[in-house]
Amino acid sequence: MGLRLEDVVKGIVPVSQDWRTRARERLDNLAIPIGSLGQMLDLAEQLAAVKETLKPSVKKKAIVTMAGDHGVVEEGVSTCPQEVTPQMVYNFVVGGAGINVLAEVAGAEVTVVDMGVARDFEDLVVQGKILSRKVDYGTQNMVKGPAMTREQAVQSLEAGINIVGGLVQEGVELLGTGDMGIGNTTPSSAIFAALSGLPVREVTGRGTGISEEVLEHKIQVIQKALQVNKPDPSDPLDVLAKVGGFEIGGIAGVILGAAYCRVPVVVDGFISTAGALLAQRIAPQAVDYMIAGHCSMEYPHRMMLEDLGLSPVLSMNMRLGEGTGAALAMCILEGAAAVIGKMMTFEECGVARNKSKEYVQ
Amino acid sequence: MGLRLEDVVKGIVPVSQDWRTRARERLDNLAIPIGSLGQMLDLAEQLAAVKETLKPSVKKKAIVTMAGDHGVVEEGVSTCPQEVTPQMVYNFVVGGAGINVLAEVAGAEVTVVDMGVARDFEDLVVQGKILSRKVDYGTQNMVKGPAMTREQAVQSLEAGINIVGGLVQEGVELLGTGDMGIGNTTPSSAIFAALSGLPVREVTGRGTGISEEVLEHKIQVIQKALQVNKPDPSDPLDVLAKVGGFEIGGIAGVILGAAYCRVPVVVDGFISTAGALLAQRIAPQAVDYMIAGHCSMEYPHRMMLEDLGLSPVLSMNMRLGEGTGAALAMCILEGAAAVIGKMMTFEECGVARNKSKEYVQ
Repeated sequence: MGLRLEDVVKGIVPVSQDWRTRARERLDNLAIPIGSLGQMLDLAEQLAAVKETLKPSVKKKAIVTMAGDHGVVEEGVSTCPQEVTPQMVYNFVVGGAGINVLAEVAGAEVTVVDMGVARDFEDLVVQGKILSRKVDYGTQNMVKGPAMTREQAVQSLEAGINIVGGLVQEGVELLGTGDMGIGNTTPSSAIFAALSGLPVREVTGRGTGISEEVLEHKIQVIQKALQVNKPDPSDPLDVLAKVGGFEIGGIAGVILGAAYCRVPVVVDGFISTAGALLAQRIAPQAVDYMIAGHCSMEYPHRMMLEDLGLSPVLSMNMRLGEGTGAALAMCILEGAAAVIGKMMTFEECGVARNKSKEYVQ
Repeated sequence: MGLRLEDVVKGIVPVSQDWRTRARERLDNLAIPIGSLGQMLDLAEQLAAVKETLKPSVKKKAIVTMAGDHGVVEEGVSTCPQEVTPQMVYNFVVGGAGINVLAEVAGAEVTVVDMGVARDFEDLVVQGKILSRKVDYGTQNMVKGPAMTREQAVQSLEAGINIVGGLVQEGVELLGTGDMGIGNTTPSSAIFAALSGLPVREVTGRGTGISEEVLEHKIQVIQKALQVNKPDPSDPLDVLAKVGGFEIGGIAGVILGAAYCRVPVVVDGFISTAGALLAQRIAPQAVDYMIAGHCSMEYPHRMMLEDLGLSPVLSMNMRLGEGTGAALAMCILEGAAAVIGKMMTFEECGVARNKSKEYVQ
């Protein structure tokens, strides 16, 4: 009854070049020195083209924060105990986490999803405080074999897709992604290494703050997981299944769902961008709908964004996840929508035009 | 009857180190990997310390956009005709300019001030749509002598100071600066060159978009203005008088007034930062109250920010002025206030602490 992955992939179309041109024409005629709102103009163009209107609205916003656990933590790749994943889910529900307060500032609703945390939240699910799309109680340890089955990979993607389907039906105009999962920089680096072919060492960072020694160990763990599983870089579902995570699959699904529904989606940090890479490999046109919320302190994140051809909105040395970077960027996107929707052109306000239009960044 | 410059300078005190420490203690105990909200934590600390509370409010916001004209435009340093200054003032009043729509998104009121535009706005002043603090009908051409008298420099500073005094009495909790004035990158570069001793060539950019040839001419004009006037780098009032502008003096006054009233002030781009440099040279502690809204595309802006020791909130290749960068950054500051005021600590939400706290950015 829900949306199926293969239909969604077929239904994702490129953003209209014609609308991009129309948007840029208006932006080039705003009563400002041409190009002088910089990246705001690029964002405004994208919002207008995605929504096929010169007055795009991003008022109604939602962030989907996906939680999951990872079997690989038994290898000692994180300084945080795994219990922190469910504890943070409770913190999201209470409203005391970073994503809660920053989403509130942005005017965004937060939907917390249990994609595969290693314990149950019956109380929270019954109370309607989180969604349960639990695929399993954490992934398998990818050093010993695939993190999940191919069917579970599809299940995690379709969970994200269908959550977005529901949110868009409720009128959501701007989506954001977020993650929670102790150990999830490890599968994120593994996904990036598998898809890009880059050496593991170049795509692996310190996550929540591991020492030089633990970082070295983390690199070896990822290398071993890739050797054991041999994910096929031309098959993103295989990569997700073998070295991914349930919340990462869910995030990729959110992005695919957003592209299918033609709603712009703000991708958060390192883990979310691992999901974005999977989404882009599954449906290359999905990248037209993506906005990179920020560039994380997890240093390989910049390389991921370059792989996708995305310029981050913010660069504030953040590395928290949860959707916090996406939430902050949403405030800026509200501005970008206003730039194209509300600012006046030279003609409309009677300001004399620059004598020279030659200098364009 | 208004505040006088010398009293304000005496009344500016450093931000409390004790409150900085108390703020950082709370931020270090938030239920996140330590330091993982990056620059947001620095901003949160600053807001808390300026306001001497762990729950700083920045809800009520105001941007002061100062307009003025410049005698030096007769040297052909800009591609824009001078009439654009008053035309843009009308655009601000109509609400179709960048600063209008971005301030609305940030929830900030915009106060437009005629500091010295080369025409009158009796209609707008009578209707209460702009403030007139006109010092003169544009500055003198600084290539031929001082841009203004020392008395006019003091007058422009005190105008900014007293506007802020009024806004703070109305309850404004966060201030921002903005500028409008055709040709005003020229005095801004001249001010920076005079105060820093850097070569004019290194501190001069393309403004609204001049060609290589006009840029070369602009550099020569600034060099000549400095030779003719010999501003004393140890006397910021002398620098403002000889190679400044009325709106730049007004902006410096806004910043001094904010520091005096202990209200954080978001400094916009290149022209506003020239004002911030003057304010900092007049009262060095004023820098404690400054937040750099963004790093402009006008490339010497980064050097100005380094001179002040400020890290910009945003870097979006903007170069419009008006206060647009300050307005956008205000959204982020609202987030920073929420980070310290509303997020929970490990103790408050019962999340297990990281085993290691060693990794701090």
